[in-house]
Amino acid sequence: MEIPLDPTDLPGSLDRLLERIGAPWVRALGLRVTASDGERTTLRLPVSADLVHGGGVMCGQATLAAADTAMVLGLSASLGRFQPMTTVQLQTSFLRPVPADAGALRLVCTVLRRGRSLAFGDVSFFTAEDKLVAQATTTYALL
Amino acid sequence: MEIPLDPTDLPGSLDRLLERIGAPWVRALGLRVTASDGERTTLRLPVSADLVHGGGVMCGQATLAAADTAMVLGLSASLGRFQPMTTVQLQTSFLRPVPADAGALRLVCTVLRRGRSLAFGDVSFFTAEDKLVAQATTTYALL
Amino acid sequence: MEIPLDPTDLPGSLDRLLERIGAPWVRALGLRVTASDGERTTLRLPVSADLVHGGGVMCGQATLAAADTAMVLGLSASLGRFQPMTTVQLQTSFLRPVPADAGALRLVCTVLRRGRSLAFGDVSFFTAEDKLVAQATTTYALL
Amino acid sequence: MEIPLDPTDLPGSLDRLLERIGAPWVRALGLRVTASDGERTTLRLPVSADLVHGGGVMCGQATLAAADTAMVLGLSASLGRFQPMTTVQLQTSFLRPVPADAGALRLVCTVLRRGRSLAFGDVSFFTAEDKLVAQATTTYALL
Repeated sequence: MEIPLDPTDLPGSLDRLLERIGAPWVRALGLRVTASDGERTTLRLPVSADLVHGGGVMCGQATLAAADTAMVLGLSASLGRFQPMTTVQLQTSFLRPVPADAGALRLVCTVLRRGRSLAFGDVSFFTAEDKLVAQATTTYALL
Repeated sequence: MEIPLDPTDLPGSLDRLLERIGAPWVRALGLRVTASDGERTTLRLPVSADLVHGGGVMCGQATLAAADTAMVLGLSASLGRFQPMTTVQLQTSFLRPVPADAGALRLVCTVLRRGRSLAFGDVSFFTAEDKLVAQATTTYALL
Repeated sequence: MEIPLDPTDLPGSLDRLLERIGAPWVRALGLRVTASDGERTTLRLPVSADLVHGGGVMCGQATLAAADTAMVLGLSASLGRFQPMTTVQLQTSFLRPVPADAGALRLVCTVLRRGRSLAFGDVSFFTAEDKLVAQATTTYALL
Repeated sequence: MEIPLDPTDLPGSLDRLLERIGAPWVRALGLRVTASDGERTTLRLPVSADLVHGGGVMCGQATLAAADTAMVLGLSASLGRFQPMTTVQLQTSFLRPVPADAGALRLVCTVLRRGRSLAFGDVSFFTAEDKLVAQATTTYALL
């Protein structure tokens, strides 16, 4: 299953891709693509009350899930289309807590290397004040 | 905020802990603790339709989120109580796809080392046929 | 370049493999294979003075390099021969310091999954007293 | 044991630090610091014959060991002095093979976050042609 993207509206077509292929539980994160030039894709993750745990900060699970989702979209943007792929490995470091009232995080997904069968990426998470709160590196297999 | 656990019913008190402190979006995963002796905690993750993506397999995001959640519960079991903690780092490898009809996965969380300020753990994911489908290693900071 | 292994003497033929293909700087670690049944390979890493840093403990760099080496040998044992392969990713957690007088560490390399093009493994490091001091998880590409 | 650095010659004093505290086997890598402004430290790793394995490319073990070493020096530069620290975790991705005749690699170590007890960093490896060949992310504990 390959799904073409509209090169004149990469952000919009990536949002529609997520709507089409994303698991319902993942779509509930509310991630939106704000910009993409193919190699670098920027997303917005709203820090909604549903993502906040008893300690009053955004749960790390949202960071993990958003990193993986960002990479699927960023890699699709880099390919110019969605093609079947699978996460091989994802490593995430949590640098700072995200307060419940942070509003939204900005995610920047960069494709570091795209080979024939493997692709590598980096996803960095920033607050509105541009503080780096988390960083993920990941390997994908292109099927 | 410390929350005591009932040593005569660790699984039940870990489930109630998750209900009490887990973010609503994480609780929607439907994770349940099936056994715990303190050092090793076993959980059940139902592969519900909400977790399945367009490729017809369980989304990796559920694996990532469940690994992090399993470690919070497993580390609490090891401590005999919940105390504030934060994920420092989580690395997950995806060994095999999980089919949509897999039923439920069994997670085994082992605390590898619990120091004064840092704790290390491993979370392995198995199908009903005992196939290892994913493995996560993680570092937590005890606050 | 494929190199056959002697199934009647896996440890000996893995040692000779390392001697033949290992970089000189890696061979200086002094790693030796003590046992292998194909899926699980055990090695011995002597904690020599050359591996001890100014803080009086074994340097983490030796752990990292030994983990990668152990996986090449363990994966070759699993394949029954050496074939070209490359490390995709290696994640190592350092659980406890290794004192300069630890003698030797025991490494246990387990192949968690061997697919057609990717293989996953785990390498655990133990002291003579059976304390887990480090754990690595890794992904390899078979070329 | 704290060791001061000379702020008027950070690269030279980091080289002397490595000479003083580095394990002999690690010093044999021949790493040199070429620049540092405290937050970003650049190093040079010569691709010597001792680091090349039977496949004709630089061994991944050298990448791993150099990443860890770069972070010790980069974090010391950020602190303005060496203080006891220990690697908690190091994750490395290998993006491209490094040919035996690559000459030398350029490593860029960035301290992403330095807290009271934990520090996070990133080490990127480039060829002379500025190709990214490896990337490491790491967590350190300040003792």
